[in-house]
Amino acid sequence: MSINDKFIINAAGRKVPVEVNGLAVIPFRGVGKFIPNGNKQAPRIPSCVEYPSDGNKLVPSLKESLLQAGLKNGMTLSTHHHFRNGDLIANQVFDLASEMGIKDLVWFPSASFECNVYLIKYLEDGTIHHIEGSMNGSLGRFTSQGNMKGMGILRSHGGRYQSVQDGEVHIDIAIIAAPCADMFGNANGTNGPAACGSLGFALVDSEYASKVIVVTDNLVPFPCVPWQIQGNHVDYVVQVDQVGIPEKIVSGTTEITKSPDRLFLAELTARFCEASGILRDGFSFQSGSGGVSLAVSAYFREIMVKKGIKARFARGGSNKYLVSMLEEGLIDYIIDGQTFDLEGVRSMRENSNHVWSSPFTSYNYHSKGNFASLVDVVILGATEIDINFNANVVTHSDGYLLHGIGGWQNCLFSKTVILTVPLFRDRIPVIKDEVTTLCGPGELIDVVVTERGIAINPLRTDLIEITKDSGLPVFTINELKELAEKICGKPSLPKFTDTPVAVVKWVDGTVIDTIWQVEK
Amino acid sequence: MSINDKFIINAAGRKVPVEVNGLAVIPFRGVGKFIPNGNKQAPRIPSCVEYPSDGNKLVPSLKESLLQAGLKNGMTLSTHHHFRNGDLIANQVFDLASEMGIKDLVWFPSASFECNVYLIKYLEDGTIHHIEGSMNGSLGRFTSQGNMKGMGILRSHGGRYQSVQDGEVHIDIAIIAAPCADMFGNANGTNGPAACGSLGFALVDSEYASKVIVVTDNLVPFPCVPWQIQGNHVDYVVQVDQVGIPEKIVSGTTEITKSPDRLFLAELTARFCEASGILRDGFSFQSGSGGVSLAVSAYFREIMVKKGIKARFARGGSNKYLVSMLEEGLIDYIIDGQTFDLEGVRSMRENSNHVWSSPFTSYNYHSKGNFASLVDVVILGATEIDINFNANVVTHSDGYLLHGIGGWQNCLFSKTVILTVPLFRDRIPVIKDEVTTLCGPGELIDVVVTERGIAINPLRTDLIEITKDSGLPVFTINELKELAEKICGKPSLPKFTDTPVAVVKWVDGTVIDTIWQVEK
Repeated sequence: MSINDKFIINAAGRKVPVEVNGLAVIPFRGVGKFIPNGNKQAPRIPSCVEYPSDGNKLVPSLKESLLQAGLKNGMTLSTHHHFRNGDLIANQVFDLASEMGIKDLVWFPSASFECNVYLIKYLEDGTIHHIEGSMNGSLGRFTSQGNMKGMGILRSHGGRYQSVQDGEVHIDIAIIAAPCADMFGNANGTNGPAACGSLGFALVDSEYASKVIVVTDNLVPFPCVPWQIQGNHVDYVVQVDQVGIPEKIVSGTTEITKSPDRLFLAELTARFCEASGILRDGFSFQSGSGGVSLAVSAYFREIMVKKGIKARFARGGSNKYLVSMLEEGLIDYIIDGQTFDLEGVRSMRENSNHVWSSPFTSYNYHSKGNFASLVDVVILGATEIDINFNANVVTHSDGYLLHGIGGWQNCLFSKTVILTVPLFRDRIPVIKDEVTTLCGPGELIDVVVTERGIAINPLRTDLIEITKDSGLPVFTINELKELAEKICGKPSLPKFTDTPVAVVKWVDGTVIDTIWQVEK
Repeated sequence: MSINDKFIINAAGRKVPVEVNGLAVIPFRGVGKFIPNGNKQAPRIPSCVEYPSDGNKLVPSLKESLLQAGLKNGMTLSTHHHFRNGDLIANQVFDLASEMGIKDLVWFPSASFECNVYLIKYLEDGTIHHIEGSMNGSLGRFTSQGNMKGMGILRSHGGRYQSVQDGEVHIDIAIIAAPCADMFGNANGTNGPAACGSLGFALVDSEYASKVIVVTDNLVPFPCVPWQIQGNHVDYVVQVDQVGIPEKIVSGTTEITKSPDRLFLAELTARFCEASGILRDGFSFQSGSGGVSLAVSAYFREIMVKKGIKARFARGGSNKYLVSMLEEGLIDYIIDGQTFDLEGVRSMRENSNHVWSSPFTSYNYHSKGNFASLVDVVILGATEIDINFNANVVTHSDGYLLHGIGGWQNCLFSKTVILTVPLFRDRIPVIKDEVTTLCGPGELIDVVVTERGIAINPLRTDLIEITKDSGLPVFTINELKELAEKICGKPSLPKFTDTPVAVVKWVDGTVIDTIWQVEK
């Protein structure tokens, strides 16, 4: 195969490999253009005969559970990220694998955090062949430098569910750390010293993995209620001293921004939503976890109180601001994939209107619909946006991979998608001629809000029309780009080798873009 | 194929067909002897592209939904029985199918009730080819008389889940009547004028059917919480005036028996459980819905209060007696498959310790364990028991099929299985040399309690030992049989033709026995 046979130009005009880690992939065909033509992954049929009749699946140690699960070279191991930077289990799993002399594993986390930089040594010594999942921070830098043996695969939360459901990824062993579990393997994230809220990101792992290990520091007598993970999917239960560090479980940003520029950005976003009629009685919204997003919720609250309206539901990541709105009756329901602070955890535990969900419910694109497309307005960030409203969330303008996709791609299907971004970061404009990496096609992105002005996607003539006399500072996206360049100058482009280091999957499993090795 | 090639003697010594409705079946091989060797049913991968992006799956009528679902000859249609004798939807489905000239349907209900006798006309005119599910009362009599075109297949609640999961049954269209639903198809049984508690029996239908129709008389704005059925599995939503008649939803027997004989039977059962040490702090039990079972719960309560102990959990079918024990703190959790009265419905709606479950959680034998085997003691009934403790719950001693299996077979895996039966019914002894139909192998049945005495399975030497000085009236099962025959005489045997009319499946999908046409 010549070098040219190895790549193809996809429907978004991006050069993508035709094979990733030796397996054929499908290039992106356009939004809604690829229709799957097969059947879901069909796990082996187990039998109760093979499991202890008293339901006691306890094994003495994590190592023993990995041995019993048949850990061997080349397997795919999954973990979840509900403990975020407070996770104590994922690194241990690979310590044990390394001890056992295992090589060429695929790590399939639902996301990685800075605590997982520890695993670089196992990427270097061949214990881990490659990561399929977010490669944040230093792991991203390591990947961008071409140091990972295999190619990384970045997927959205929904894409992760889709890839397992559709059989693109077979998980050999799922390791599910749980703040609360019983001997049968029922588990939840709402109770216990390491309570993190939901365990929804591990749902697909429990449903489809060949072997499922639940690890807990809080073993309760059967039944562990609620059973966010069902013991009927679980093979082994392991008791350990600690699964997560509570104070590191909360997300980095849990306070409203104090930056005047960013507060203005949030206010502008809220004013846009009011002017465009999105904030009507019974509306729904999702606004993420960053300081700007929190400020948007606070401005929404002001407007809702003033107008005497309430929201039917808010999609979490939940935080104390959403929880207070739920408790005051400004929101009927929080539908929550992950809790970003301990108030979120408390609310999920105590309030039946704070509902835990999963990527299946919310984001899986290969489903009979999902919740993401029912949300009236979603407020998201981006690292870069181009003049066609295409956006990037994984690489920075220097070419380095530094973030995962999270639910970002999935949220693009909501009725109105607003990207709130500063006009420039470290004197590098955010709006560019072309994004370094394409994560979200411009046709799905409706509005870009910066502290200097708002750009509305020309496709949304309705939004342009309804806000034309609102007094809001609306510009074209080219005008915003020129304004940034006037201040910062034209940014220089990153330099890449011709070696791909990772691919970005679209929500339907096709490859939307390639991440290239950064030239040293 | 000669007549002899069509049957085989299975491991229980019962003559069973090798094919049922043209499909090969596996004869029973013994408890825990058949290990499945395949993969679960793999539904087609759907895509959000094929569903309305605003989540609105409403179609104007049940007929329209059946048309859109592509109803045609020979399809398998499923319904659930949570409305019991108050169901208003199943019959309508077949009225519509008949109107549309559709033939040879398979009806796959989770159970049938007397209200479904209405469907006999469709069994007669060929709209329905056969029923896979319980054929109670008049439907059973119709079947036993050889009037159904195909052969009936009787499965336990767990066996129904297993058969769909394993691909033995493919549901073309599932019709799920729901007391509460939203336009997306999220649905529950806990809210609305026809509230029935759980919708757990329809779970497997929603997960595996090609097309899923939710029918509701109580459409609420998205999100319908809790979502016992997930809209992500649903194709169409239909709004109708009424899905069920509330006063007929409750089970026939919701009051404690007043018969002195039956009260004594219940008391004896409770005394046995106390004497054998089963009623210890943290124990668990399941006791069904009949008048005797309710009385057993009442006696359990007395003993628990006296001993100052509580149960960790009770498995429902729940009723007001279990609910009062939960609310008084005598039980930590009710794990409930179906609510037998409106107090059960209220409790499930209001109390997070009254947990709705499904046959997947509780009963599916082709799973990584299930809840049934974790229960300390289960109290069940039977139509007949033989001297080897084999039992029958589907036919009466006159040979007629009159009951479904329900969860009965699944419950046999609990740690101690007690059958409470009168020594005779209508002067026909219940304990016989051989059961008319084998539903439960004797090795799983530990104790038989009658109003005249108790028989303990010789395999349970522990129970024999622990109760030997208890003063309880313990006999051999032969002694009980002889006592009955002394009073009633030796019963005459039913006369059958050599035509099978239905088969009884074991929990693993194998055929444990045949139901034969009754000689006219």
